[in-house]
Order: sequence, then structure tokens, then C-alpha cells
Amino acid sequence: MELREIGEFGLIARIKKNIPPILPGVLRGIGDDAAISSLTPGTELVSTVDLLLEGVHFNLFFTSAHLLGRKSLAVNLSDIAAMGANPRFALLSLAIPPRTSVEFIDDFVGGVLEMAGAHDVALIGGDTSSSPERLLISVTLLGEGKKENLVCRCGAQPGDDLYVTGTLGDSLLGLQVAQKREGKPTSSDEVYLMERHLNPIPRVQEGKTLAERGLARAMIDVSDGLYSDLWHICEESQVGATVWVERIPLSAPFQSLATVPEGQNWQWAVKGGEDYELLFSAAPEKALELKELAQHWKCGLTCIGKVEPFPKGVIIRNEQGPVDYTFLKGYDHFA
Amino acid sequence: MELREIGEFGLIARIKKNIPPILPGVLRGIGDDAAISSLTPGTELVSTVDLLLEGVHFNLFFTSAHLLGRKSLAVNLSDIAAMGANPRFALLSLAIPPRTSVEFIDDFVGGVLEMAGAHDVALIGGDTSSSPERLLISVTLLGEGKKENLVCRCGAQPGDDLYVTGTLGDSLLGLQVAQKREGKPTSSDEVYLMERHLNPIPRVQEGKTLAERGLARAMIDVSDGLYSDLWHICEESQVGATVWVERIPLSAPFQSLATVPEGQNWQWAVKGGEDYELLFSAAPEKALELKELAQHWKCGLTCIGKVEPFPKGVIIRNEQGPVDYTFLKGYDHFA
Repeated sequence: MELREIGEFGLIARIKKNIPPILPGVLRGIGDDAAISSLTPGTELVSTVDLLLEGVHFNLFFTSAHLLGRKSLAVNLSDIAAMGANPRFALLSLAIPPRTSVEFIDDFVGGVLEMAGAHDVALIGGDTSSSPERLLISVTLLGEGKKENLVCRCGAQPGDDLYVTGTLGDSLLGLQVAQKREGKPTSSDEVYLMERHLNPIPRVQEGKTLAERGLARAMIDVSDGLYSDLWHICEESQVGATVWVERIPLSAPFQSLATVPEGQNWQWAVKGGEDYELLFSAAPEKALELKELAQHWKCGLTCIGKVEPFPKGVIIRNEQGPVDYTFLKGYDHFA
Repeated sequence: MELREIGEFGLIARIKKNIPPILPGVLRGIGDDAAISSLTPGTELVSTVDLLLEGVHFNLFFTSAHLLGRKSLAVNLSDIAAMGANPRFALLSLAIPPRTSVEFIDDFVGGVLEMAGAHDVALIGGDTSSSPERLLISVTLLGEGKKENLVCRCGAQPGDDLYVTGTLGDSLLGLQVAQKREGKPTSSDEVYLMERHLNPIPRVQEGKTLAERGLARAMIDVSDGLYSDLWHICEESQVGATVWVERIPLSAPFQSLATVPEGQNWQWAVKGGEDYELLFSAAPEKALELKELAQHWKCGLTCIGKVEPFPKGVIIRNEQGPVDYTFLKGYDHFA
């Protein structure tokens, strides 16, 4: 069945049907001009939005509707996590080619709701429209946090340690596997990397814990790539940074499949993109507490460098000294 | 100069430059993973999102970048107004063809910020991306209101009077003028109607006043058309409604240019769409207070009908009795 057969209100009714009837904090969800919801008293509103366009941000040849739904929310959860905030409410906007099947949309919304449910996020509204060519997804995610806990990009101080969760570069390599294998990975390493690209796990709990315990002074999620995102922290905090290439956490599948000359696979990991790991700076005296905390984190935590006095910019170095990193530009949509 | 020459971060910097440095309630605006802002204590969060796609929702041949910017925010302000809420914060997402001129985007953002400034709304974040074919705009608008004041679609009661602000049908006729004249209206009536389509004025103050004074029991903004939006109120409130065609407020330019057989131009006004007027129900004992209040409203206020016991549905009638309205379907994006 095609979407045009059920129409706009049929689609909205179909989405509404799959939403739990009672959601904490939701006074009025889908079905009005605007949604009404309650933040926890004493918290600030934390809001972010992401736009995903078919052929630009995703390829329906590689991903399933379900995974696309999960990822659409995950990339926003990652932004909320990077503030150390608690995600609460989501608005979902879709512009859909009229010949799209209803099953596709059901699977997509199922993925969104699965990811939302895993983080106690309520889908409270959105907008639907037709799109002549491409599927377009926009998710607004609203969260909350106490003012004194929330972490911006601007708090890094010279002498801070730089940490990153998980491993880097998997997603970029996973995208290449998907493209090369036309979505059909041939080994468990390829499956792992492709999964890291198509089904990223936002570090929501990790971000919240770091914020509540006052462990991170500046934080960002690694979406444009380590180099580019570290640059954002440096710019907003008016500091420089050094990263030691040999410390950059790489997964075993990444190490076995990265095809750059040996000893240089850090390049993929530094350029990266869509890692959705958390990058943060912490005062050196927090090192022990962070080490203990990370023992409970499946994704792991690695100290990869140090914050330096302004204006050194970002320096990537190995044992011999600074290495050339002029190629490490983040993705620019208009370049 | 084309957008691809300044790149994504050049664009963001350009938008940021035009935003006032200090905005009430904004703790962290553009420049982080998410924005941080404060609602007034004791209020609930009211949120809405709208998606506008070139060729579907707007035509760059008819509208200017500046008016498009104004309208992109106006349609969301209208949704917030329909809840009787106070608009506070906006997130703007843009997917832009790379060959778009920087001047176009400057004018567009100028229009958004002009409309935002007129309603004390702060632009606090968003997302930018390239789009291969069409300009795409998504605005999320966040507002606030006291729980006891906010007005939903679901509170209409049999016996209530039905009111609408302003006049109806102007926007639909204005769109037709724009199409027929290729954006060049030839009389002041045509200019008026086209302006009503391209530069709608959201009834924010009117909506807030109605809510604060407890005058509206159910409210919606007329975006799909009077018939369709009244149907939404009936559905959510589990009631029926009667509208008297001779009471529907029509502007003088509308009356002079509507080309349907005399005495039937109400059809345009009932079908309508994109009127962005407020439609609400009020207890009969509020009639005098509403009349006095509306004397201060430039847009005017008209009682057009009554709420009836369920399940009569929506009846459109003239002096002779119910009239045929089977053609009056609202716009369906997928039909």
C-alpha cells in the first residue's frame, strides 16, 4: 500500500496509534496545533534539531527503514548527551514521496519509537508533507538539565586532559564498506563497522553522568570528525589542544580493515565523522574518578591528549613530534 | 556570491552575526551541540514544528526571500497563538542548494529575524545542510503558557459560539492572483490579497489575550481551511458545529475579486487554507466581553456559528437551510 492511499491524516493517525497512551510530562501530544509538556522544575530547556536528507545524509540502498528511524533520533540524542542533558521530548517532521509504502513508514516510525523508548523520550508532535523526490527527516529533540550541571563547548582550560568515549573511525570505514559492498558486508568485521555507521548508539547515560558529577569542563559529540570537533572546543574555549595519535582508540575491526599504510590508520580516525562519541576535557585531578567510572562503561573511555594555552590550535603528534594534518578537514555541506 | 564560496561555517557565522547579543532567557544560543534556555517558572513548554519545501509550500517565483523568511516563522507563531501560548525560542533548519546566493540567505534570515523580533522570539539554534534540488525550511518554535490558560482543540461544548478573527479566503485568492499574474498584481485589491498570502500576520497577541482571560474553550488556527480546521475541533471535542455562510467575514478585495457565482463566494472562504486566523469556541455568556475586546483588534472578530451536540458533524447553512459542502475538503499532501 502506498502512502497516498491513506493520506496525511491517515499517516498521522497511524503514528499516533503506536505511541504509548500516557507519557511522563506530556500534557498534550500529537493532535493539536502545538504540544504541551512539562520540564522538571529547576531545570533549563535544552534543544537541538537535525535535518537528514535522502542522498545527502543517508542512502536507502544501504540502510533499512528501521535503522534509519533509530539513527534519526540517535544523532539528536548524541547532541543532548554532549550537553550532559536529559532528553525528554521529540518532534518529528517528515517530507515523503507519495509513492513511499506505508510499510516503510511504519518501520521507520517503529525505529524512531524504539530509540525514543530506550531513552524515555516521548514523541509529542511534528509535521508531515509530501516531497517530490527525496525523503526528508527533521527531528527536534528537547531535553533538560540543571544550569550548574550542563556542559558547553566553552569551558576547556589549559592543562585539562582530553577524553573520548568508544572508538573512532568505525563509522567512516563502515560507510565505505556499505558503499563498496553495496550494503552486503562479507565478514563479521565488515558487519561490525557497517553497524557502527548505520546504527550508532548515543552516549546519553555517559554524558549525563559526566555532567551530574561535574567531571567534564567542555564537551562535544564527535559528528564532524575528531579534528573538526576538537577545533570547535578550542575555538569556543579559546585554547589549543594536542592529540597523541598512538592513544586514539581504534576498534579491532577498524584496525584489521583500515587500508591506509600501517601506522597511519589514525588518519581515518581523526578525520572520521558520524562517530557519535563524546569528546570532553576534564581537570587532571579527575583522572582517577574518570578511570573508575569508565570501568562500568561498555563503550570505554580513553585519554587522547591535553588542552594547551591559546593560541596553539590543534596539534596532532606522534612520538617523533607533530604530524601533518592539513588534509583533516571536517565535512562541509556547501564546499 | 554563492553559498558554496562561504561554506557551512561561514553561513552559520553570518546568521549568528545578525542575532542580538543578549536575549531574555537564552543561556546558550547558536554555537553549541544544543541550545540552553529558560522558561518562565510555573509555565509549561509549548512546542510546534513546520516544514516548508520549495515547489510544495512556496514558489520562489512569487515570493521574495525576505517575505519567505517572515512567513516561515509566522506559520509557527500562528500555531503557538492557537494554544494561547507565548512564543519564546526558535530553531531554524535549512537545506539549501549550493548555488543559492549569499544575498538570498541574508534576506531570508533577515525576514525570519524581523518576524522573531516583532514577537520577542530568540533564534537559538538550528541545522544547515545542502540540498540537491529544493530549498527546504523547517522551523521549530518553543513557547510557554500556564497550564490553566492554554487552549486545546478539545474543549468546545454544545451551545458555545464559534468565532473567527480577521477575514477568510484572502490567502487562497491571493495565491491564485500570484499564479495568474506571475507574481505581478495589477490592482490594489490584487496587491492586498497577494500580501495576505505571502505575508500573513499571526494573531499572537489575540490568542494570548483570549487564553489569559479564559475566553476561548477550544481554539485552532485556520491553516488547512475553515471547514477542515473546524472539523478538527469537532473531532477532538466530540461535538458538531453549524456555520452560517452569510456571517463568514470576507474582505472587500475578496468580495470584489472572487469569481464564483454571486452569493457563493463563501465557498472560497470555507475551503480557504493558509488564512492563519484564529477559530475558537466561547461560552455564550462571554459574548459581551468578546465584543468589547475585539473593538481594540485591528483584525476584527466575527461570530460565525455555534457548537452543536455530537454527532452532527460540520453543517454549513444559509437562510434556506444546509448547503452542499461535499467539495470542501482540506488540503491533503498525499492525496
